[in-house]
Amino acid sequence: MPASTAQDLLDRVVVVLMRTTHPGNIGAVARACKTMGITRLRLVDPVASINDEANSRAAGASDVLDDAEIFDSLEGAVEDSVLVLGTSARNRKMTWPVGTPRDLGERAISVLSGSDLTEDSTVALLFGQEASGLSNGELQRCNFHVCIPANPDYSSLNLAMAVQVMTYEVRMAALLSCEASSVDLAPVLTPEDAAWDDALANGREVDGLLVHLEKMLVGIDYHDPQNPGTLMARIKRLLLRSKLDKMDVNILRGVCKAALNKSNT
Amino acid sequence: MPASTAQDLLDRVVVVLMRTTHPGNIGAVARACKTMGITRLRLVDPVASINDEANSRAAGASDVLDDAEIFDSLEGAVEDSVLVLGTSARNRKMTWPVGTPRDLGERAISVLSGSDLTEDSTVALLFGQEASGLSNGELQRCNFHVCIPANPDYSSLNLAMAVQVMTYEVRMAALLSCEASSVDLAPVLTPEDAAWDDALANGREVDGLLVHLEKMLVGIDYHDPQNPGTLMARIKRLLLRSKLDKMDVNILRGVCKAALNKSNT
Repeated sequence: MPASTAQDLLDRVVVVLMRTTHPGNIGAVARACKTMGITRLRLVDPVASINDEANSRAAGASDVLDDAEIFDSLEGAVEDSVLVLGTSARNRKMTWPVGTPRDLGERAISVLSGSDLTEDSTVALLFGQEASGLSNGELQRCNFHVCIPANPDYSSLNLAMAVQVMTYEVRMAALLSCEASSVDLAPVLTPEDAAWDDALANGREVDGLLVHLEKMLVGIDYHDPQNPGTLMARIKRLLLRSKLDKMDVNILRGVCKAALNKSNT
Repeated sequence: MPASTAQDLLDRVVVVLMRTTHPGNIGAVARACKTMGITRLRLVDPVASINDEANSRAAGASDVLDDAEIFDSLEGAVEDSVLVLGTSARNRKMTWPVGTPRDLGERAISVLSGSDLTEDSTVALLFGQEASGLSNGELQRCNFHVCIPANPDYSSLNLAMAVQVMTYEVRMAALLSCEASSVDLAPVLTPEDAAWDDALANGREVDGLLVHLEKMLVGIDYHDPQNPGTLMARIKRLLLRSKLDKMDVNILRGVCKAALNKSNT
């Protein structure tokens, strides 16, 4: 599916919660999922109901709760899933294929990008009950266990936080896999980028500013050209590092002009 | 500081909350931070107090609340910060250097790994008030704005969720920067890895199994060696893809033996 958008991929991700105890947590999970563009929630044998508290915590993500599907068993909830990823603490008795949210988020998107999937295929992100996590039987239904590399002295992310981290990584992987989405992920924006609000100053503008600055520094008796030290070099280094735009140059020249005017009165 | 551990780096990260309204949010932030190994919380002009609700939401992270520092102004809270990263929605009136949590988490760790920092230098992760976010003045005190690439139709992460994502990325960057921590981040664990619970089966063991399997399939009248089709090739492909360990081989040979015994009775 080379024409997939990131959202097409995310539409095929389902979040499965096992026997969730607190309505507020279901709501917080709905909100976390929706912020990452994942809106398919499946509840297996929920203890909590989708009540006012759930809707309150969901904030603007009540639609995710409205559309949530309820299942009796894990088997039903992952029937259409070609990959099941279950969050787990480390050090279970039996070793299982395990990875970080980043590795497995990438794997989820890679699987969903495969050309031979049927239309209704999903990837399931599976989360256990708040207090106890996933049971051994549930963990053994997973292709991979996801282990968030948390503080070993305090690794207790609450349910919605774990969902937020995992869905964030799946979203990042989806955005990174789709060229058209990469605008959201552009590395740090600087004046060199087209999206910056002003154009970069050219060499003539920068040099004009540097001449004006030196003249001003002499005018206010801060700089002695006979004994320059490294002052101008440092100022040049600072300004060039900042990659001045045209407006920056105008403003700094305005400052120079005003300082010179004032010093002449 | 080449001998820094990931935790040394994380100990120099401070989370700064501006004018937080709800005690529960301060507690949830404390928990989110501590799960990522970041325990220095600074509250600027908080509306909420650190009350029972805050401690309840903090769960096992009450120590982070106990040690939280209160400041009158942002200036005080970032006095020792060599880098200030502020979360922001995109499309502010004035363009500012902006990046993703991943880019800026890496930058934070890179700055903290610098050899010429004083002992007390920090990096500040700055978060605005729940409803309104950071003010323009606060945003203009930041070196970079952090933009979480959320669902454009619903980008409303709650405060603690935004803190969780940002501190997660800072922790990932810290772990990735320190060789000694990389065990936490090992890519997907498979039977090929030393940490797997059983040793990989060798070629003799695998071939012995394949012979036994074929004999069993013939014995139960599922496989006709005169008309083999692709059955054995598919079974070999499946098993070799799974990278069998010695215990897997023992189990599968036990199955073959039992099936043959049963079919002979």
